[in-house]
Amino acid sequence: MIDRTPAPVDDRPHVVVVGAGFAGLACASELGDTNIRVTVIDRRNYHLFVPLLYQVATAALSPADIAEPIRRIVSRYPNVDVLLGEVTGIDATARHVLLADDGYVPYDHLVLATGSTHSYFGHDEWEPLAPGLKTIEDARQIRTRLLLAFEQAEMSPDPDEQKRLTTVVVVGGGPTGVEMAGAVAELAKWTLARDFRRIRPANAEIVLIEAGPRLLSTFPEPLSAYTEDALRRLGVSVLTETPVEAVTAEGVTAGGRFIPAGTVIWGAGVRASPAGRWLGVETDRAGRVRVGPDLGVPGFEGVYALGDTALALDDDQRPLPGLAQVAKQQGEHLGRQLAAAIPHGRPMEPFRFKDRGNMATIGRNAAVADFGRMRLKGFVAWVLWAIVHVWLLVGFEKRARVTLQWLWRYLTFQRGARLITGETKAPVSASEANQAQRREAGRAG
Amino acid sequence: MIDRTPAPVDDRPHVVVVGAGFAGLACASELGDTNIRVTVIDRRNYHLFVPLLYQVATAALSPADIAEPIRRIVSRYPNVDVLLGEVTGIDATARHVLLADDGYVPYDHLVLATGSTHSYFGHDEWEPLAPGLKTIEDARQIRTRLLLAFEQAEMSPDPDEQKRLTTVVVVGGGPTGVEMAGAVAELAKWTLARDFRRIRPANAEIVLIEAGPRLLSTFPEPLSAYTEDALRRLGVSVLTETPVEAVTAEGVTAGGRFIPAGTVIWGAGVRASPAGRWLGVETDRAGRVRVGPDLGVPGFEGVYALGDTALALDDDQRPLPGLAQVAKQQGEHLGRQLAAAIPHGRPMEPFRFKDRGNMATIGRNAAVADFGRMRLKGFVAWVLWAIVHVWLLVGFEKRARVTLQWLWRYLTFQRGARLITGETKAPVSASEANQAQRREAGRAG
Repeated sequence: MIDRTPAPVDDRPHVVVVGAGFAGLACASELGDTNIRVTVIDRRNYHLFVPLLYQVATAALSPADIAEPIRRIVSRYPNVDVLLGEVTGIDATARHVLLADDGYVPYDHLVLATGSTHSYFGHDEWEPLAPGLKTIEDARQIRTRLLLAFEQAEMSPDPDEQKRLTTVVVVGGGPTGVEMAGAVAELAKWTLARDFRRIRPANAEIVLIEAGPRLLSTFPEPLSAYTEDALRRLGVSVLTETPVEAVTAEGVTAGGRFIPAGTVIWGAGVRASPAGRWLGVETDRAGRVRVGPDLGVPGFEGVYALGDTALALDDDQRPLPGLAQVAKQQGEHLGRQLAAAIPHGRPMEPFRFKDRGNMATIGRNAAVADFGRMRLKGFVAWVLWAIVHVWLLVGFEKRARVTLQWLWRYLTFQRGARLITGETKAPVSASEANQAQRREAGRAG
Repeated sequence: MIDRTPAPVDDRPHVVVVGAGFAGLACASELGDTNIRVTVIDRRNYHLFVPLLYQVATAALSPADIAEPIRRIVSRYPNVDVLLGEVTGIDATARHVLLADDGYVPYDHLVLATGSTHSYFGHDEWEPLAPGLKTIEDARQIRTRLLLAFEQAEMSPDPDEQKRLTTVVVVGGGPTGVEMAGAVAELAKWTLARDFRRIRPANAEIVLIEAGPRLLSTFPEPLSAYTEDALRRLGVSVLTETPVEAVTAEGVTAGGRFIPAGTVIWGAGVRASPAGRWLGVETDRAGRVRVGPDLGVPGFEGVYALGDTALALDDDQRPLPGLAQVAKQQGEHLGRQLAAAIPHGRPMEPFRFKDRGNMATIGRNAAVADFGRMRLKGFVAWVLWAIVHVWLLVGFEKRARVTLQWLWRYLTFQRGARLITGETKAPVSASEANQAQRREAGRAG
C-alpha cells in the first residue's frame, strides 16, 4: 500500500475531505489559509453544478459551462491539496482512507461528503433503461438518447412506432423531474419543431409520472397546483398518484397502464453513496449515515458526514432535506468549526440550518419560489431563478457564457448543444424492424 | 432491405450526398430551393468545424462550440432531407446506397464526400496509444489523457516517472501538429502552472516530431523557420528529419532515440474514408478516388467524389491538397453544376480551385499566413486567423460564444473546459507502480 498524500508530510494536523460537491468544497474552502493540511479527494477532477445538469441533458448548455476544475477552485489556498482518486473504504483504526489503486491517505480528521445517486427502489435492472441524472456522462447519455429517438422516429415508416419513439416519460415529480419534463417539452416543441419532415416533434408526448398526490411535494400546495398547470400548458401530461410498476425497452407501466416510450428518464428516489458501508455503521433506508448535532459520526472520533451522505436532524428531530443549500451550509459550518477546534481546542458548535427558500423552474417564464411567507410564481420567479443560478456558478466567464446562451435561447428558441455523441446506438425495439419489413413486403407484393 | 429515403418518393430527380463535412454540406446547400430532391446521409447528427477541434482537445472550447446539427443547417431548404445513418456500401447497378441497418437509399446522382481519417503508415497498432484528432470523441479522449497524465504525475513519487508523464509528444509537423504542440505548451505552461504542488507543469516537455526537413512543408520556407522559432520560444522541442519508429505505452522511439512520454498525439498522415472500396475502384496510396475535371468518378455515371475522398488534379496535373477550402469550393461547384445540369441538361463545367491562401496558428500572438505574394506572421497573422475562424463558424451564437471564450483566455490565460470525462483510466506504466512500491518499501524499512 502506497501513501498517496499529495503534500510532503509534516506535523500539521491533516483533514481529508472525500467528495468535492457543494458540502466538501465549502468545508475545504473554509479551511483554506489555515495552519491545517487539507486534502480533497474526488473521483472527478471537477466540481459539478448539478442544479443545471438537466440543461446539459436537454442540449441547452455544454458540460464545461457547469463544471470547474477542483484544482483551479482551491489553487488560491496553499494548504489545500487535491487528489484524483477513487475511495474504496476506510480503515478507522489506522485512520486511513483506502483508494482503489492500492494506495491510502492517512487522516487526523475525515469529512465524508460523497453525495448521492438515484434509487430504483429495488429495481436496479431499470437503470440502463431509465438513466438518472447525476453526472456529466448521465447528461450526455440522456441527450444522445432523446435526440436519437427523434432521429429514429423520422426514419420509421410506422406511425405507432413514430409515436412511441417521440414519447418521453419522466419518472418523479420533484424538482428534477419537473425541470426535465419542462425542458424536454420545450426542446421538442420549439427547438426541434422545424427540423424534421415526417414526424412533428411539436406533437411529441411528454409524460411526467409521480407516485405521490402532487408535484413538488416539499413546496406549498398552491405552487404545486401552479406547476401542474404550467406543465400542462407546455403540453406535458402529468400523472400523479401513479406508481411505476415496470420499465422495459418499449416503455413504462405505471398505475396499471402501459405507456409506450422511446426515452425514459429517472428523477425519483435518492440513495446515499456508500460512506456508511465504508464505516460499517447502520444507515437509514436511503443509505445515509446518522450524525450528531456537530455533524460528527457517533463512535468515530474526528469523522464527519455532510450533505446527502448524512442524516442530520433539525431541532424538531426531522431529517434535513437533501438540498444543495443544506450541503453548502453544513460544509461551511464544519470548516469553520474545525478551523477553530483543531488548533485552539475550542468545542464544536452544533449545526443549524437556515432555510434560504426553495426554487424550481418549469420552463420559459415559469418557475416557483417559496421563501416561507413569501411565495412567487411565473415570470418573476423565473427571472429570479435565472439570476440566482447564474450567480451561484463558479467564475465570471461561466456566468457570462451561460447568460449569453440563455439570452440567445430566449430570443430564438434554439439550443446550442444538440449533439449525438459517444455510443450512438439506442435500444430499438423489435417491433420497429418488423413493422418496416411488413411494409416493405407489402410494397414489393 | 428497407427503403430509408426520408421524404415521400416522387418523380423529382434524387441527389444523395454522403457526408456532411465542408464538401457535402456546400453541395447540398447549393442544391437547396431547387426542384431536385436531396438527401444528406451522415453517421453524425452534426457538422463539425474540424479546424478548431484541437482547441477542444486542449480544453479551450466545448464540443458544442464547433458543431452544428445538420438538420438545423439545412432546415431552410424544404427539398433537402437528412438521414442519420452509417453507409456500408454502394450498389452501383441498382443505384442504391447501402446502410448498416439493413436499409438502402436509391439515388439518381450520388455525391461521395466522406472525408478522411489518420494514417498510421501500416502501424494500426499505434492508434490506441497515439490517438489522432478527427472526431469529438477523439478530442475528448486526448483532453482526458492530457489532463489525467498531469494528475498521475502529481501522484507519482518518482521524479523520472513525473518527467515521463508530463512529456507530450506530437507526431507530425503539419498545421494540426503545429497547432496541437503550441496549444499543449500553453495549457501546461500557463493554465495548469499554478494548480499543482509536486510537479511543475511549466517544466513539462512538449516534443513535436516531423519526418520531413521542416514544419508546415506546404508553406514558404521563411514561414516554416518562423514557426519553428515561435514554437521553441513556447518551450516546444522541435525535431525535424526524425521519423517515428515505434510507439509504446511508455513513449515514442524516433530517429533512433527513445523519448519517454505520458501522452502521444498523432497528427501525421491522412487516409481517405472507404468510398473507393464501396465503388470497387482503384485508389491512390492515400485511398482517394480518382475523379475527372467535373469531379465525376470515371466509369460511374452520376457518381461524384469531393474533398478528402477525391484525388482531383489541377491544370498542371498535380493533386489538389486536402484542405477545407478545396472541399468547400468543390462542393459549391458541384452543387451549382448539378442544379443546372439535372433539370436543364446543361453540360458540367470543370472544377477550378481558387487558392484563397493558407493559415496556421502556433499560439498566443503567433500565426503564419500565406497568400501567395503576401505573407504574414506574428500578431497580425494571428488576429487575422482568429477573425477568419470565428467568421467561418456556423451561426451567430457560436461566434459570440467562441469570441467570448477567446477573449477570456487571452486576458486570463485560463481555459474553461478542463474536464476529465468518460473513460478515466489512461495507460499507467508498470514502472510507476514499481517505483512507488520501492519507495514505500524504503520507507517501511
